[in-house]
Amino acid sequence: MRHFNSDLAVEMQEAYKEQDEKTPGVRLNESKHENISISHVEVLNDVGAEKMGKPIGNYITIDIPPYAHYDAETVDSLSRAVSTKLSELIDLKDEDVALVVGLGNWNVTPDALGPKVISKIMITRHLMQLVPDNIDDKVRPVCGISPGVLGLTGIETGEIIKGVVEKIKPKLVICIDALAARKLSRVHRTVQICDTGISPGGGIGNRRMEINEKNIGAKVIAIGVPTVVNATVIANDAIEMIFEEMIDKYGDEEDFRKMISFINEDDKWSVIQNVLTPFYSDLAVTPKDVDQVVDSLAKILANSVNIALQPALTLDDINRYIQ
Amino acid sequence: MRHFNSDLAVEMQEAYKEQDEKTPGVRLNESKHENISISHVEVLNDVGAEKMGKPIGNYITIDIPPYAHYDAETVDSLSRAVSTKLSELIDLKDEDVALVVGLGNWNVTPDALGPKVISKIMITRHLMQLVPDNIDDKVRPVCGISPGVLGLTGIETGEIIKGVVEKIKPKLVICIDALAARKLSRVHRTVQICDTGISPGGGIGNRRMEINEKNIGAKVIAIGVPTVVNATVIANDAIEMIFEEMIDKYGDEEDFRKMISFINEDDKWSVIQNVLTPFYSDLAVTPKDVDQVVDSLAKILANSVNIALQPALTLDDINRYIQ
Amino acid sequence: MRHFNSDLAVEMQEAYKEQDEKTPGVRLNESKHENISISHVEVLNDVGAEKMGKPIGNYITIDIPPYAHYDAETVDSLSRAVSTKLSELIDLKDEDVALVVGLGNWNVTPDALGPKVISKIMITRHLMQLVPDNIDDKVRPVCGISPGVLGLTGIETGEIIKGVVEKIKPKLVICIDALAARKLSRVHRTVQICDTGISPGGGIGNRRMEINEKNIGAKVIAIGVPTVVNATVIANDAIEMIFEEMIDKYGDEEDFRKMISFINEDDKWSVIQNVLTPFYSDLAVTPKDVDQVVDSLAKILANSVNIALQPALTLDDINRYIQ
Amino acid sequence: MRHFNSDLAVEMQEAYKEQDEKTPGVRLNESKHENISISHVEVLNDVGAEKMGKPIGNYITIDIPPYAHYDAETVDSLSRAVSTKLSELIDLKDEDVALVVGLGNWNVTPDALGPKVISKIMITRHLMQLVPDNIDDKVRPVCGISPGVLGLTGIETGEIIKGVVEKIKPKLVICIDALAARKLSRVHRTVQICDTGISPGGGIGNRRMEINEKNIGAKVIAIGVPTVVNATVIANDAIEMIFEEMIDKYGDEEDFRKMISFINEDDKWSVIQNVLTPFYSDLAVTPKDVDQVVDSLAKILANSVNIALQPALTLDDINRYIQ
Repeated sequence: MRHFNSDLAVEMQEAYKEQDEKTPGVRLNESKHENISISHVEVLNDVGAEKMGKPIGNYITIDIPPYAHYDAETVDSLSRAVSTKLSELIDLKDEDVALVVGLGNWNVTPDALGPKVISKIMITRHLMQLVPDNIDDKVRPVCGISPGVLGLTGIETGEIIKGVVEKIKPKLVICIDALAARKLSRVHRTVQICDTGISPGGGIGNRRMEINEKNIGAKVIAIGVPTVVNATVIANDAIEMIFEEMIDKYGDEEDFRKMISFINEDDKWSVIQNVLTPFYSDLAVTPKDVDQVVDSLAKILANSVNIALQPALTLDDINRYIQ
Repeated sequence: MRHFNSDLAVEMQEAYKEQDEKTPGVRLNESKHENISISHVEVLNDVGAEKMGKPIGNYITIDIPPYAHYDAETVDSLSRAVSTKLSELIDLKDEDVALVVGLGNWNVTPDALGPKVISKIMITRHLMQLVPDNIDDKVRPVCGISPGVLGLTGIETGEIIKGVVEKIKPKLVICIDALAARKLSRVHRTVQICDTGISPGGGIGNRRMEINEKNIGAKVIAIGVPTVVNATVIANDAIEMIFEEMIDKYGDEEDFRKMISFINEDDKWSVIQNVLTPFYSDLAVTPKDVDQVVDSLAKILANSVNIALQPALTLDDINRYIQ
Repeated sequence: MRHFNSDLAVEMQEAYKEQDEKTPGVRLNESKHENISISHVEVLNDVGAEKMGKPIGNYITIDIPPYAHYDAETVDSLSRAVSTKLSELIDLKDEDVALVVGLGNWNVTPDALGPKVISKIMITRHLMQLVPDNIDDKVRPVCGISPGVLGLTGIETGEIIKGVVEKIKPKLVICIDALAARKLSRVHRTVQICDTGISPGGGIGNRRMEINEKNIGAKVIAIGVPTVVNATVIANDAIEMIFEEMIDKYGDEEDFRKMISFINEDDKWSVIQNVLTPFYSDLAVTPKDVDQVVDSLAKILANSVNIALQPALTLDDINRYIQ
Repeated sequence: MRHFNSDLAVEMQEAYKEQDEKTPGVRLNESKHENISISHVEVLNDVGAEKMGKPIGNYITIDIPPYAHYDAETVDSLSRAVSTKLSELIDLKDEDVALVVGLGNWNVTPDALGPKVISKIMITRHLMQLVPDNIDDKVRPVCGISPGVLGLTGIETGEIIKGVVEKIKPKLVICIDALAARKLSRVHRTVQICDTGISPGGGIGNRRMEINEKNIGAKVIAIGVPTVVNATVIANDAIEMIFEEMIDKYGDEEDFRKMISFINEDDKWSVIQNVLTPFYSDLAVTPKDVDQVVDSLAKILANSVNIALQPALTLDDINRYIQ
């Protein structure tokens, strides 16, 4: 059986809607920010946490309109929508250090979102140490790292982050990650934010160290965008949907229902494994314009984080700094 | 219905083997070159051409062993095997110009094989015009272009090649292309060569101008390696295989066979279309090490073409030239 | 002695200003377009052409303000300024085909400007042939190629362009190129436009085929931006400037003037050659943010060309097409 | 005044040779390994350290022959030469963890050498934790990180490394870095190894935290290859050399010597600053084939480190692991 934890914010939203709307301890707020749809689920207390099966915290989904990346105005609206929601979750004093972490593998285009964002973040911590007189008082000290992935480093990403956090003691860690979506229709179409932590490489196994306040020693906000679907999802969806089609046609017939039910999960996964041989789990499915879209997403997220972390500056100020 | 013409050489081989071995006008030769398996189908005359449904010519498949790209010795053996078969198809005088064409889109990793090969070809034609005294007499004049793809240029690739051929009058055109495989098991696992022409972007429609001697005005040798599978193949294979699984279990039951047979091709393609929404035909499935493998393939093919076009030089001579 | 033809438009402007302003047959027009400075030299007739030593035509320089690439508004102003000047030079009927050519080597970052622009051009010619009913009547047929560089192809770039022009018969060819500047202060700081042709790889030798209406068979507009300086320029400037410094200090002393004058051009170039050994002419000097700036320049130029070639569409329409 | 610490090993060698050969406490050993020239300076004790002005330790220079990167055999010889010298410096038990650190900025080609090496290192530490039964006992646990550069992260590289070292406690840290050479003739032509530490971004200022055993808490071996020259070096060399030329011609004349001597260091740096305006310190000078050469260097260094860290495995074993 395969589990994907990647679409946490979307699934919280869907789970909440499917339930009786009066669930205590949980609040759903749906809004528009300049035509960008935002859904915000708050798990308020232990009752809500038990009911939803998720920790107390915020789970935010921001829709990316179709073709957004080809429309400069929508790109700007998205940056503002994401930064507005981020700002709601950020509670820092002016002098508090923030660490931005770009998760993922910079050698693999759809997984390079995190590292690409880092290269566009307004990095200021070192300037405030080296040339404090040249830096405006209103500028917050920000630093950023791209720790790589376990397969490339041999080190749990959480260990690297914790090692750095212990050295530089930030008050907030913002993690950016490319997600493997559970549905093709979500690829490149949502920005997902939560403040309860993130599991890097989620879905591959359950031994991985989660990146959250308890493990890392600083508050964690995670921002993710689905950029890829595993080929197993495609194969699985095809089988599920052909069954639905067959049930539509023959569902009344008792014999048929029985037959379908005999095709169990193990049969299905063995078929999928066969279909994807010899590559199986190492196959990524991506839209062909993935390079351009990841660049555009990186710009949106970097702008959002920069605006949220530097409330005293305008976006133009920030861009002049970055150059 | 979808058609893929991409695996021509492999399919000729398979088609031949499935037939009565005494087909007149067709010859199959299977051999080993330093442990590399080679299969060579020759369509010798009109009888063979009609029988096989393909033009008179040579269709060669060279197997790439698993993990070849991580073993320097196998990479060298492959270069020699491919260059040996290429040499059999090349019949040029010393002074004849050869044009190497890298088909495909250099912005999309799995499609960049052709342009990457061009960047490693020993280009000599201009030197023989600009500094003839510095160039060894035994060096053949070779030139190369990467014409791009229709969607990027707005011009049929064949038109560009023909325009260039009319200006520089080569005696031979060698086209290198990344192929979309019909089966996942062929991805990165065969080099396919034929001397009857190539259809760029084959499978997308049937209006495209084929690149062959008749259209271009010079003999054409095509070399291809499958680097990608369309997501439709994955979805289709999953459905076909789950049907097979079900037939294995319930195939004896008359009712069931009937049901399966009612799920017709249109249903299947409508399901696949739904599974792949919103991207459908724009989804590429690639192994995650595609960057490294395409680099390795480019080196193998460039070495092979360089050796075959410059029989008077050693590979070391060639590499010194290229630098 | 080394010659660089790269900064044609800027030098026309400077040459004109240094002269008596009443030069007949030449007109200089300096203007502002939303704070972007534009200088436009027109050589109107043979008298002007002889006086300026350049063919009859237009030579336009558009200043890029410092830090422009980090300010979205300036980027937009630049696109509009360049497209406005381009539009003045373009005189096409709705149905006339335009060919955009991206000169330069896509493997070398500062030389990849042309090919990068091509990847952002609104390419429509093939759609108007394949799916004419889906395409708005007001859309002009545009196609684009990136022909590579002589060292990579073995073919004069002009030959490739001419071959393609003869096949598809465009009424206008727009060439985009990265220039090697003669002064560091021009790198990334001007867009230069002329309608008298362009010499690819200018400065390397004088045997190269110029890309102009006479050679190609269609009107040519060239757009260039300096992205690199040859290391020889740095070495040469250092020597010239230290001489100036010395003359400032000791210029009154007769002996000293004599000494300096004895250091002749040959000495100087022999010193420069020694300084740059073992690489000499193969050294490029680039600002460290070259990757980001070339991306930004590509976007500015692509927007400008798209707007100028599709006057019936808005930039939003164009961007939706491109996706 | 500018200082560059980048060519430590070469300069130790040159300094030693210029001295009386009987310097006590220092030993120079020059050798050949399959035609690769190796020079090894050992500073044996405090007397030698004081004499040479450098800490006790090993300073090794391995020459890269011209055109090495275009000759597979020389590439292999180099890998073996570097690994042989590395092995002499490594003293680990089988179970000791080694951490390989790729210094430099992966977004800037000539500075990406370190991160590129990391992507080719045989990373095993995580496998020995996750799937110990599948891993051969003879395999050493190796991990790797690419910590980025101060300007990109806002964190001293040494702080990041120290943070990680404290978490995973390696017995050895191997740092790979691209160097800014002090002479153009050294670019791409030497591999430099020392076991006394490395100063990242050396030359930019003297506040940077050195990466050595004392600061990091584990033995440090540094491997570097010069890939770039600062544009200031070109300008400075041009001035120095034109002075030499002038002294050759007029050196006898008292007046002239005086004049030259009046041009002091401040004048010279002010000239250089003017020449390089508006970019000054942000200009990199690189040979045009830098992309290919850095790839080749990365392969050589990765092979060397892999062989030296995994003495129980063959290079073929290692390459199979890496895939």
